[in-house]
Amino acid sequence: MSGISYELSVQWGDTDAAGIVFYPNFYKWMDQATHHFFTSIGFATSTLMREEEIGLPLLETNCKFFQPLVFEDAIVIRTSVAEIRDKVFKLQHRFYKEDELVAEGSEVRAWTSFGGKKPKAVSIPGIIKEKMVAAESSASRVRALVC
Amino acid sequence: MSGISYELSVQWGDTDAAGIVFYPNFYKWMDQATHHFFTSIGFATSTLMREEEIGLPLLETNCKFFQPLVFEDAIVIRTSVAEIRDKVFKLQHRFYKEDELVAEGSEVRAWTSFGGKKPKAVSIPGIIKEKMVAAESSASRVRALVC
Amino acid sequence: MSGISYELSVQWGDTDAAGIVFYPNFYKWMDQATHHFFTSIGFATSTLMREEEIGLPLLETNCKFFQPLVFEDAIVIRTSVAEIRDKVFKLQHRFYKEDELVAEGSEVRAWTSFGGKKPKAVSIPGIIKEKMVAAESSASRVRALVC
Amino acid sequence: MSGISYELSVQWGDTDAAGIVFYPNFYKWMDQATHHFFTSIGFATSTLMREEEIGLPLLETNCKFFQPLVFEDAIVIRTSVAEIRDKVFKLQHRFYKEDELVAEGSEVRAWTSFGGKKPKAVSIPGIIKEKMVAAESSASRVRALVC
Repeated sequence: MSGISYELSVQWGDTDAAGIVFYPNFYKWMDQATHHFFTSIGFATSTLMREEEIGLPLLETNCKFFQPLVFEDAIVIRTSVAEIRDKVFKLQHRFYKEDELVAEGSEVRAWTSFGGKKPKAVSIPGIIKEKMVAAESSASRVRALVC
Repeated sequence: MSGISYELSVQWGDTDAAGIVFYPNFYKWMDQATHHFFTSIGFATSTLMREEEIGLPLLETNCKFFQPLVFEDAIVIRTSVAEIRDKVFKLQHRFYKEDELVAEGSEVRAWTSFGGKKPKAVSIPGIIKEKMVAAESSASRVRALVC
Repeated sequence: MSGISYELSVQWGDTDAAGIVFYPNFYKWMDQATHHFFTSIGFATSTLMREEEIGLPLLETNCKFFQPLVFEDAIVIRTSVAEIRDKVFKLQHRFYKEDELVAEGSEVRAWTSFGGKKPKAVSIPGIIKEKMVAAESSASRVRALVC
Repeated sequence: MSGISYELSVQWGDTDAAGIVFYPNFYKWMDQATHHFFTSIGFATSTLMREEEIGLPLLETNCKFFQPLVFEDAIVIRTSVAEIRDKVFKLQHRFYKEDELVAEGSEVRAWTSFGGKKPKAVSIPGIIKEKMVAAESSASRVRALVC
């Protein structure tokens, strides 16, 4: 499995009266996985915002749900780059419970400057594009060696 | 604008450190709009669960974000039926701020019996299909008369 | 019943796997009631923040729970001033389901300037103190006339 | 510092438009720390509910906030038993950021059977009382040896 891994466990408050996870929480976890992804490649989103006034607002997200999750389920999200364009990128998030794919979603975000009067999409720096792709490739390479 | 309307206002706790709505809340609101939709056509989801052990788990959801929302924004969600099949249906949710479309999403849900050992998709009753479609048509008709 | 009223209904996502409201949501609702309280007396917290860089961080909160709430319960919160000092005030929130008191909590907040390097508690303006007290008194007076 | 430790880091979605943690999240974390406490002493709340229909609804909670928290803060909650009576117990939760006490709260919960028509408080089993106290004592003892 390629991509950067983010681990979580389902909390009591994540469930609803049907006893399963209330679905907006899958998006909460995708957002956490995205922040973790950028921290992992050396560009924490907190630093980007504080030092460069760069934020990553969403253009579009989606998720497919294959298995309901319950309290205490241990989940790993594998986050990988699905697409990078000049100002916009798409991350794919795969949710695994043990080895089973239980959900799969994606987020399209714009590299956005919050420094002006209005937020404005700007070009993703080359060094960050490289790190995003490298993270993915190195993870894939590891997989290639292992499998 | 067709569909059943659900009104909300953005709460302080819905925002994040960038000052805009944390995006999973759009899905929280879609879920609220769906429950409201079924209550509006006479089949409250609470009654469906209590009396018939029917729930409506998600198969897939998505959302496109056109404008960020901030604390105190007043929003109307227009919910309409995009598709009904035997056991599965798709609702479309359009978010309006005044007359501007600020976000648009959809939910695909399965009509599911929780009465057996495992949740199982079952056929949507004809009467409910009719009400779902009628709600949509009548809303459209109203619009047709008004515009 | 005295105080400013704030109405809400329990949403599906507010419940947990025991079928009742996940308790941190009571605090989410108290926060909403507080914002509503200030809007009601003519000093919306959004305006206070935008125009005067005043925010209302919490010093202490508590809540007692008398009855569990379930999906679709209609609740009214009555918010009243329990205490006002120079820089600090305490609001009391009473949760009613029909006429039954189902929960009761309070929030102690500091009138805080976010304009300097660090947030700093400052004196509550006299006009606002007056409005806070008047809201309370007028609500009581209404009750006195009605009952 | 005595008590069972529960670690967390502040997520992006935990903050609000003032850039600090939205306060109901402190209660969300206390709830997580409580579930973690019972898992740590060998009585996972999920097992208690599934096998014995025992739940732990809240009677009262409170929290004092000494320092605001921001995105990415790493927090340790120390959970200890403040009081155990026949059917009711009180847990104290202390929030530390590095060595600084940033918040302190408590939860009073009732040992409750959900097996009958209505939830009903019942006696806490002796073995569980012992484990709750032992966890506390052993943690204190460790501290005594170390300091």
